[in-house]
Amino acid sequence: MKNTILSRLMRIEILILLLSYLTSISSKQIDDILVYTVATSETDGFKRYLESAAEYNIQPTVLGWGQEWKGGEDIRHRAGGGWKVNLLKEALQPYKDDKDRLVLFTDGYDVMFLSNLRTITDEFKKTEARVLFGAESACWPDETLTSLYPVPKQGKRFLNSGLYIGYIPEILELLNRKPLVDTDDDQLFFTQAYLDEKMRSQLKFKLDHTSQIFQNLNGAINEVELFTENEKENPELHLQNAVTHTRPLIVHGNGPSKLKLNALGNYLARAWMPNQGCRHCKRGHIDLQKKTASEMPLVYLALFIEQASPFLEEQLQKVYDLEYPKKRIHLFIHNGVKYHTPHVADFVEKYGKAYLSLKQITAEDGISEWSARDLSLDQCLLKECELYFSVDSVSHLDNPHTLRLLAEQNRTVVAPLLVRPGKAWSNFWGALTTDGFYARSHDYMDIVHSDKRGLWNVPFLSNCYLINATLLRQYDRAKLNHVRGNLDADMAFCANLRDLDVFLFVSNRVDFGHLVNPESYDITRSTPDMYQIFDNERDWEERYIHSDYPENFNPDKKPLQPCPDVYWSPIVTKRFCKDLIQMMENFGKWSDGKNQDDRLTGGYEAVPTRDIHMNQVGWEPHWLLFLQRYVRPIQEHIFTGYFHDPPRSLMNFVVRYKPGEQPSLRPHHDSSTYTINIALNEVGQDYEGGGCRFIRYNCSVTDTKEGWMLMHPGRLTHYHEGLLVTKGVRYIMIAFVDP
Amino acid sequence: MKNTILSRLMRIEILILLLSYLTSISSKQIDDILVYTVATSETDGFKRYLESAAEYNIQPTVLGWGQEWKGGEDIRHRAGGGWKVNLLKEALQPYKDDKDRLVLFTDGYDVMFLSNLRTITDEFKKTEARVLFGAESACWPDETLTSLYPVPKQGKRFLNSGLYIGYIPEILELLNRKPLVDTDDDQLFFTQAYLDEKMRSQLKFKLDHTSQIFQNLNGAINEVELFTENEKENPELHLQNAVTHTRPLIVHGNGPSKLKLNALGNYLARAWMPNQGCRHCKRGHIDLQKKTASEMPLVYLALFIEQASPFLEEQLQKVYDLEYPKKRIHLFIHNGVKYHTPHVADFVEKYGKAYLSLKQITAEDGISEWSARDLSLDQCLLKECELYFSVDSVSHLDNPHTLRLLAEQNRTVVAPLLVRPGKAWSNFWGALTTDGFYARSHDYMDIVHSDKRGLWNVPFLSNCYLINATLLRQYDRAKLNHVRGNLDADMAFCANLRDLDVFLFVSNRVDFGHLVNPESYDITRSTPDMYQIFDNERDWEERYIHSDYPENFNPDKKPLQPCPDVYWSPIVTKRFCKDLIQMMENFGKWSDGKNQDDRLTGGYEAVPTRDIHMNQVGWEPHWLLFLQRYVRPIQEHIFTGYFHDPPRSLMNFVVRYKPGEQPSLRPHHDSSTYTINIALNEVGQDYEGGGCRFIRYNCSVTDTKEGWMLMHPGRLTHYHEGLLVTKGVRYIMIAFVDP
Repeated sequence: MKNTILSRLMRIEILILLLSYLTSISSKQIDDILVYTVATSETDGFKRYLESAAEYNIQPTVLGWGQEWKGGEDIRHRAGGGWKVNLLKEALQPYKDDKDRLVLFTDGYDVMFLSNLRTITDEFKKTEARVLFGAESACWPDETLTSLYPVPKQGKRFLNSGLYIGYIPEILELLNRKPLVDTDDDQLFFTQAYLDEKMRSQLKFKLDHTSQIFQNLNGAINEVELFTENEKENPELHLQNAVTHTRPLIVHGNGPSKLKLNALGNYLARAWMPNQGCRHCKRGHIDLQKKTASEMPLVYLALFIEQASPFLEEQLQKVYDLEYPKKRIHLFIHNGVKYHTPHVADFVEKYGKAYLSLKQITAEDGISEWSARDLSLDQCLLKECELYFSVDSVSHLDNPHTLRLLAEQNRTVVAPLLVRPGKAWSNFWGALTTDGFYARSHDYMDIVHSDKRGLWNVPFLSNCYLINATLLRQYDRAKLNHVRGNLDADMAFCANLRDLDVFLFVSNRVDFGHLVNPESYDITRSTPDMYQIFDNERDWEERYIHSDYPENFNPDKKPLQPCPDVYWSPIVTKRFCKDLIQMMENFGKWSDGKNQDDRLTGGYEAVPTRDIHMNQVGWEPHWLLFLQRYVRPIQEHIFTGYFHDPPRSLMNFVVRYKPGEQPSLRPHHDSSTYTINIALNEVGQDYEGGGCRFIRYNCSVTDTKEGWMLMHPGRLTHYHEGLLVTKGVRYIMIAFVDP
Repeated sequence: MKNTILSRLMRIEILILLLSYLTSISSKQIDDILVYTVATSETDGFKRYLESAAEYNIQPTVLGWGQEWKGGEDIRHRAGGGWKVNLLKEALQPYKDDKDRLVLFTDGYDVMFLSNLRTITDEFKKTEARVLFGAESACWPDETLTSLYPVPKQGKRFLNSGLYIGYIPEILELLNRKPLVDTDDDQLFFTQAYLDEKMRSQLKFKLDHTSQIFQNLNGAINEVELFTENEKENPELHLQNAVTHTRPLIVHGNGPSKLKLNALGNYLARAWMPNQGCRHCKRGHIDLQKKTASEMPLVYLALFIEQASPFLEEQLQKVYDLEYPKKRIHLFIHNGVKYHTPHVADFVEKYGKAYLSLKQITAEDGISEWSARDLSLDQCLLKECELYFSVDSVSHLDNPHTLRLLAEQNRTVVAPLLVRPGKAWSNFWGALTTDGFYARSHDYMDIVHSDKRGLWNVPFLSNCYLINATLLRQYDRAKLNHVRGNLDADMAFCANLRDLDVFLFVSNRVDFGHLVNPESYDITRSTPDMYQIFDNERDWEERYIHSDYPENFNPDKKPLQPCPDVYWSPIVTKRFCKDLIQMMENFGKWSDGKNQDDRLTGGYEAVPTRDIHMNQVGWEPHWLLFLQRYVRPIQEHIFTGYFHDPPRSLMNFVVRYKPGEQPSLRPHHDSSTYTINIALNEVGQDYEGGGCRFIRYNCSVTDTKEGWMLMHPGRLTHYHEGLLVTKGVRYIMIAFVDP
């Protein structure tokens, strides 16, 4: 508790400092215009309001701060707000005789300043009005009044009470026109005044039909756009009304247009600029690097394994590798997939004790995803957590600083951008359809490709996110949970957060990690991850390609050449070897070593081995991709000038050498341009003897290394034989490339 | 003249010595039987008679020797021979009272003894006759007498007077029955006596119907065969009468059966035996090795170029290389083929002066073959030659001793066996059809394959033969020439010789040489011999395959390896290179070096050269055979264990590198398993620069040798480029083998 209050106070202080600083440099203009808003507490929207004000040196007076809201509940969907009128009336008393002083009133939670006061007052004076209200396209809250409204030459017809400006005497006259209760509707109050022709003309009471100053977004969502006059000299992104060709100076996400304002707010008020990038990222940012372990925010880390997920072992390892004191982390694991039980068990056995606490819900418990997720939120509060960190099994946090960086970003909800490598699929949505499903935003691809980096206010995110526990304490589980009709848990959760006007930020300020693609993951296979080279190539490569593979191309290193034109390269991991042998032994149908071989087109093999072909275990397409992606570059590097892409290979198989079965192979040529021969296990440890002898050179390779590949010409020069295995079992992977 | 007489006397001496020697050891048996024959001069047939007698220790008394024949001319086709009766009558006078003494009379020119006298007399006594004549199947010379002949139980019905035996008193009574003129017919004389029943029974006058002793061949040709009782213990080949199951002891080639006797005579009387081979070869053999050059028989060597003949240059060279003093050789050349004029001119210019004399008849002279051949015979006599040696342009005398060996064989006519390598086609016929054309003899293939070696009396020979000039002096050109109806010259000549009862011997006692096959020789080609790899592979190989080619397989030599797995082998002669370049330059249509190439199936060549493909000059089948026969074995020797027979090669071409045209070729791989690259001309002499660089090994082969082949893997390991030719023109032959 202490910690959270502290951080909140801290943020307020920063704000005050900022404002007083601005005061000093903008003291002049503040003389002739007063700026007011109403806000009782600090929401994400109000923070954005203050930031935009600060950006343009505007010092608003916040009315009702810290008080309980009296303007009626749920102002979004029903009438109310009379309280705002009464607060302002009171605030203006001291200035009632000041004829030349202006007053600017705006709502606070869903408004942004887009300009400074000078420009605003100049624009107001051009209108020759004494009172000017923003306009909108809906006659609200009393539609019956529509016909009484005068029809403007151009623009929006109806009054909106969220934004207005005027000379204090006229504004006071308007506010005093008749008394109203705090829960009465302020917009109806002003509408009636406007429709009173006498008062309208007497007060020079006008509406800003064409958004010279005020832009109410509701009903105008498709009329506004972002633009820069000149990216070099003035890279600021402005709001432009494409219908009236004006550049509004204040924007209001009234009614249901709040998501539009959220999207625009990522850029407006210099939040993000082409030349400076993300400026609002820095606001409210905190630094945890100098903190001691015990000072670090207490995290509740919730892991969700809700579907069979490739490369889960690595995913869990990356969670453990997060550079964050384990003793400040309570760990929660929900595993909904029986197949992964051993993986989770291994992880828990290995690392479980490192954490402050560990709560496991296993597949056997049969608990649904949403109840597990809700439960984890309750557990978080129970453990008096400060941060709640949700991580799904498909989320690979490759950046070990992820958790700290997100904490430092210090937002109510923030997610690291995670994308399926090379795909457009990410863990957030840029926009929503009206019925709340995925819609693409103008900047979605820029963000996914990190062509634009920053912190993005979005309508939906999932798979991995950090929540400031303050939020969890503000609302009971009835409001803040993962259930909503029959929506997926994550969609329900985001919808609920949106209803609470909570901003959902996704960050791509740095690379945090990626998503694996579970769609083709077939756990009926004996080694399903081996089959993932197509859909999860990056993770496949990390698990199965030898860490020294890049050394094969090191210009300062000569390729190893144990025999003339026989090359030796590290290519796959021991795990690859282990999994391939398991794949084969699990299949088990080794050939009988006879010449007659129905698997071959010719039906005849002159120099037969005991083997299993890749196509017998459905792994040939995968193997061919491996050949093209990892073997071919080595070939091109070693055998200069020979290009054959993709490599052709009809014969791909694992051979088993075994005393009493087939311990050796007589001299022969291969039907290949070059042959590769990958040692799948370790001489001296798994077997004795064995190796390959090249007869013409009287040269043998016997000290083969597990995961290393021999590459040699198949024909003509490299007549070779398989040497006798005297003990144990030797496995090699063979391919005849370009027959 | 002197010389010939000398050699004749010499032969008679040998004969006498032989006979008197035999006398001493067989004196006992000669007491109770007298053996007579009639012969005026020493023909080939009479020599054979004497040899057979000597073989069985028989010493016949030769009546009429040295006298002029009085028995009527042409005894073969008309009646006559009474003289023989009168000669015997006279010779028996001294023994007229010797009741127990036997007399055996046989003709001389066409008779062979097949047994000794003891066996003959024993067999005679079994017949219980006092007079026994041989029988035959024709009633001759007076067919009207047929009905008067008694019909025997078995065998031949009619009397033949060529062979008979009896007691002297009964024989004399028979001879004295009535007087007869020398030119009367002896067979009619004896026939009348036999048909006189009274005399027949009184004299116990019988015919040997079933050939217990006497085998007359006429009319019985297909009833006799050669056989051995037991090749180990008694390897002598006997004559067996397959109809009567008898083993005749004397054989008579009466009438038109002489050729049959000639064929049998090659084996009978131990002339040839399975264990001892050719025994009659040694008879009459002379030794010229100790003779000085001037003592050697004077030879008239007649060369006949009657048809376009492949490899004539070599053929002429081999004639020159005959180890025989050139100063004892008069050379005659008839060239009937314009195409060969330059070849003959070269030969004459080079060697003409070496010979005792040279007579040339050129194509321009337009003289026919037979008149040229007849002319050469006249020229031989004019030059007082002792030996006439006829050699045709298809006859390759690979054995330089051929001429001397044939001279030492000392026969009237003898030819060296010449065969088309690997074929059944030779320069002799084993038998004749009745109308005088080719027929195969039972031993033809044995002789052609030299499974039997010896000296063979055959009915026809050609292409190369040696004639003892004595023969040429015996008859005028009317009898001894090359004209006979419209027969070919050689057939006419042999027919004429057969009519003169001259034996035609062919010898395969050693290998003398071979025949080239001119059938596919197409002199419309620019280098026709290059196209002869199919039909004259042996000669093609001799001319075009490098003399060091076999060294490529010498187990004590390491193959040259100028760069890793790049091998260097001598393979073709400079002549091959010269001819191939000529073939190409004569064709002249070099490609333009553009990528677009209609000669290729794809129509596109990535790394084009200026070249001509083998199939453009109709030489691809020949090239592919060259690949299979000469390149493949080197490949199999060098690149152990790689077998691909026949080699496939779609790209076979000669490249021309030339400054200003295309002086070099950028780095590339070949579409081959291995590539061969034959240097067709000489660096430093024909051009400067050039060579092949293997980039991966940073190794270049620049000092290429004309006729040497580079063989290297085409793909993967041997990325290579053609180095810049700075001066002159470089030609290489390229093939991409096993693409």
